[in-house]
Order: sequence, then structure tokens, then C-alpha cells
Amino acid sequence: MSQSFDIAVVGATGTVGETIVHILEERDFPVGELHLLASLESAGSSVPYRGKNVRVREVDAFDFTQVRMVFFAAGPAVTLSFADKARAAGCAVIDLSGALAQAQAPQVVPEANAQKLQGLPKPVQVSSPSPSATALAVVLAPLRGLLDIQRVNVTACLAVSAQGREAVSELARQTAELLNLRPLESTFFDRQMAFNLLAQVGKPDAQGHVPLEKRLVRELRDVLGMPGLKVSVTCVQAPVFFGDSFSVSVQLAGPVDLDAVNALLEAADSIELVEAGDYPTAVGDAVGQDVVYVGRVRHGVDDTSELNLWLTSDNVRKGAALNAVQVAELLIKDQL
Amino acid sequence: MSQSFDIAVVGATGTVGETIVHILEERDFPVGELHLLASLESAGSSVPYRGKNVRVREVDAFDFTQVRMVFFAAGPAVTLSFADKARAAGCAVIDLSGALAQAQAPQVVPEANAQKLQGLPKPVQVSSPSPSATALAVVLAPLRGLLDIQRVNVTACLAVSAQGREAVSELARQTAELLNLRPLESTFFDRQMAFNLLAQVGKPDAQGHVPLEKRLVRELRDVLGMPGLKVSVTCVQAPVFFGDSFSVSVQLAGPVDLDAVNALLEAADSIELVEAGDYPTAVGDAVGQDVVYVGRVRHGVDDTSELNLWLTSDNVRKGAALNAVQVAELLIKDQL
Repeated sequence: MSQSFDIAVVGATGTVGETIVHILEERDFPVGELHLLASLESAGSSVPYRGKNVRVREVDAFDFTQVRMVFFAAGPAVTLSFADKARAAGCAVIDLSGALAQAQAPQVVPEANAQKLQGLPKPVQVSSPSPSATALAVVLAPLRGLLDIQRVNVTACLAVSAQGREAVSELARQTAELLNLRPLESTFFDRQMAFNLLAQVGKPDAQGHVPLEKRLVRELRDVLGMPGLKVSVTCVQAPVFFGDSFSVSVQLAGPVDLDAVNALLEAADSIELVEAGDYPTAVGDAVGQDVVYVGRVRHGVDDTSELNLWLTSDNVRKGAALNAVQVAELLIKDQL
Repeated sequence: MSQSFDIAVVGATGTVGETIVHILEERDFPVGELHLLASLESAGSSVPYRGKNVRVREVDAFDFTQVRMVFFAAGPAVTLSFADKARAAGCAVIDLSGALAQAQAPQVVPEANAQKLQGLPKPVQVSSPSPSATALAVVLAPLRGLLDIQRVNVTACLAVSAQGREAVSELARQTAELLNLRPLESTFFDRQMAFNLLAQVGKPDAQGHVPLEKRLVRELRDVLGMPGLKVSVTCVQAPVFFGDSFSVSVQLAGPVDLDAVNALLEAADSIELVEAGDYPTAVGDAVGQDVVYVGRVRHGVDDTSELNLWLTSDNVRKGAALNAVQVAELLIKDQL
């Protein structure tokens, strides 16, 4: 197939946007013209692609009829401002911001529900879920046939990179301040992030839930195709730069055969199962990798109907940019 | 009551041992003679107490008939070596190492099961549970009457200080190495601890459980007096110096009234409930405090039979040293 596709990346100067550009090159995606777009403040900088620096232009002025496909890798407000324009211009849209309703743009993780891409109205609109939902779906999807899952309990320990470059700088700066016994400044986070855990990632509603937690529950149910799944979730900001970690406890209708679980995890392309007795870490294993790492596969201390897992995943790469590009790879096969 | 008690602290040079000495002074515990003991390597140093430096002597040479009560704040091997000797000398024993069997030395958290101290055979032997079990028991105990608890899911994010001074130094050193772009050395931890989470605290058994997780389940059931309680637990080593954090999801037989939960937590002396919408942190709230902090009290995202909580507790102080001293305070009232 020598066909190529003109593509735009909105939010190209952000961590996820840059990683999309990098992965398009790495996986030799058949890109014709690549248009990198951002808000007024970020426009003017450039991003390396195939040995050249590609200039980032202002999204407001962009004529979407120039491209076949758009990745939205900025915030929800940007997607809401420009997705209709892109769609009116006939572009396929892959949104990473969570701004589009499920009915309008289904959540897709290719390892879990690639079939959702079939028969979508044109131009196609697809959502790439939050990095947490993506990592969890990649690991739980191959187990669906084996397990009668009653409930999933998740504590997601999230890297600061999900909050952008300012959050990364603040963790580094606070850490240096503390090690050098200088007074601590918090400007991005609402309190000390270094050597600490923050139990609330975002602003809670009147019931105490933050948007990220509600989004994770909704997306996980959608992607796994299990609308009634009980999901208990707490998202925690960890003093980690890159890579999310998930403590997962799955409750099942009956005893689970761990050998069968291990065999399914072992067989899945997007999963790296570490050896029994070992465990993966965000920094040491997941960062920079295309797979979700799984370890500590075990029953409950005295409950064989409980399946415990520890997952680590590169939130920017596997959790966001790569998933969006995997969706794009499927779309160009038969939907564009 | 002007009676005073001659007391020994074994493991007096460790973080917990030193904190016991500090708390005995702070709470004006009626100490007669204070004997500080440690292994051969640590003997010879001294620990401040009531304006003096008290010399730490070798535990092997100690005549336990000199004291009425002994705190064992060293490792399980030390307790197993000397507890019988202390008991034979007629001393009450308070063990913090988890070495003694439940039948021999009941686990006690005064806020949860002070009644266990009544009618024990003399000389009394009591265990102070692991810091995690203590923090969880303090918070769950006042809720027992209100809630029909089916299962407790816990992800415990533990401070490195629980592993002793070497672990604290290694986290600081690794962090400085990374910030200064120097090569990273791991000697205490088996891999990078700085800016990372380690999902296995200790050596797992053939089933994948680490001793700390099994101990937590056992102790929590004992202290709450709920032998059949289902407890799902993962212990994680966090890059935090002091203060443990717990993501807790409690499943109940039916819908829970959050106002009633908040009222019970608010009324408990050893709990500080933060305002709705806020959350406590290990570093900013719990460290140095005598209470367990609770926040993020909420239902599941769409499940009112789920109660979620975020706890932070000073692992050395509230989780260990203070609990042991609180037990001692009750013992001297009517058991010694």
C-alpha cells in the first residue's frame, strides 16, 4: 500500500503531541504532509520529524480541508472548539482529550475493542481513552473470556507528566529545594509534591469524585464492553516523573486459575508479564515501552476468588500517543 | 498516682525505639529508671531523655529483673531471643516486631480493642501491630457499629523510614544522584527508589504474598475482632521519607450514610477528619502527629454500598511508638 495520508496534530508542542509525531515516524506511518498545530502561545516553535524541524502553526488559522486525519492532543476546550470544524472539512478525528461524547466518538483501545471502528459514520470520530483506562483495558481485555469479573478495585498512582511540563519542572524544583534545605515553593501543585503523595488529582465534585476518576470508570466499562462493571477507583498523584503504576484487585464470581491467567497475559502482544516473584516498576520497565507491564499476579491472602495485579505503563506513550496511532493504523486500513 | 516504673527499651537506637523514648518523656509517663538497650553494634551511643543523654547498653548483658516493663522495638529475631528472658524475670512485654504469636501476646490498638488487656496472664505480653494495621484499625474501629463491612481493599503506600535509617539515606542519595545526572546506585533497595514506586515490600512466598501483607490481614482481623473479614491488600514502597498513605475502599452489605460516617470519624479522638473536598497528605499533615488523618470520604462513583477513604499516618509515631506507649499507659493503670 503506497497510499499516504495528510495529517494534522493539534497540541503538537505538548508531551503527548510530540510523542505522537515521534511514533508516527518510528512506526513508519504513511504520512503525506504533516501539519503541526497549537494555540497562539505555542505556535512558532518546531518539532523534529524525519530529520527536519517542522514548524508549529496556529490552529485557529488552519484550513482542515488540507488533511484527512486530525489528532487532538490538547485539552478538552481545544477539541470542543475545533472538532466540528475538522469534521465539517471531512477529516477523521482521533481525540485524546476526553471531550467528545461516547455516542459521538467511541472510546477505542485496539487490544480490547477494535471492532468498534467498523461501520462508524463518516467522517470517523474516535476517542483514545485516558492513559489509566487504556492501560487497564489492555490487561483486563484478554482475561474477559476466562474470568467472571464482579468488581475491579484500582488505586492509580499517576506520574506528574500527565499534567504537562510545568508539573514535571515543579517536582524537580521542589525536590532540589528540599534536598538543599531551601524553602519550598508550590505553584503548579496545591502543596508539596516532592517526597509526598497527593490523593486528589483535579477538582472534586459535591460527591467527592474527581473528573479523572469518573472518566476512568466510564471509559473502562465502554472499552471492555461491560456496562455494569463495578469499578472502585482512587487516582493519586505520585512523585514520579514518567510512568503510571496501578494496584489492581479484581473480584471474581468464583476461584480463579492463576496458571490460566498467566498464560493469557503471556500470550498477549501488548503485555509484558514479569517472572513470578518479580514486579515491574514505572521507571525501570514501562517508560519508553509499547507494552503494559504486569507483575505480582496472585490470589488474595486467603481468597482464591480475588485476583491481584500490579501494572506499570508509560502514560504518555502507551497510555496516550501510541494508542491513538494504533487507532489511526486501523482506520487507514479500511475506514479512510 | 506517684508510682513509677522502671522500664527498658530494646532497639533504642532505631527510629521507633528513639521515638518511644521521646514519647515517654513527652507524655510524662511515670518512668523510674530508664534502661536503653541495643545489639552489640549499636551499644555505646546515647539517646536524649529528660535533658540527659542516656547511654545505650548491650541487651545480651542486661538483667531484666531490674525493670517492670520492656518495649521490644528491634527486629523479630531480637524479640525471640530475649522475650522469654524478660518474661521469666517477671517483666511485662510490649513487642513491636510482630514476632510473638497472637495467642501468646494479643495485638492491641487501644482505640479498637483495649478490652483485650483485661485478664491477661501475668507477666503480661502484648503486641503492637504493624503501623499499617494500627492506622487502619484506628479508623475502622469507630465505624464497626454503623457498617456491615464485607471487604476492605487497601493499597498501602509506605514510607521508606519503616525500613530504617539506611533506607532513608538511600532515597536521599539516589534522588540527589538523579537530579545531578550522576549514575544511580542501589544498595539497600533492589532497584531505583527515587521517583519510582516499588510494588513488593519484602520477599514474597510461593503464592506471591509478602510477610507484611499477610501480617496486615491477620492483625487487622484480630484488632477489629472480625476474624472472617475479607481484606485485599497490596503494600507499595513509595519515595516518601516519613508517613504512610492508604487508599481504602470498603464494601458494605448495603448503602452507607456518609453523614453518619463523618460524624463518627469526627467524634473519634485519634482521628483528624479533614474538610470535605480537601485531603490530607503524609508529609503535610500526618508526620509528627498523634492522630490518623482521614479525607476523601465518599461513595463509589455510582455505588452507595462502597465507602472510600484516604488515610495518612505517621508510621513511626502513631503507627508504632505511640501505640506501644498508649498500651503501656493502660497496663500501668490496672495490669501491673
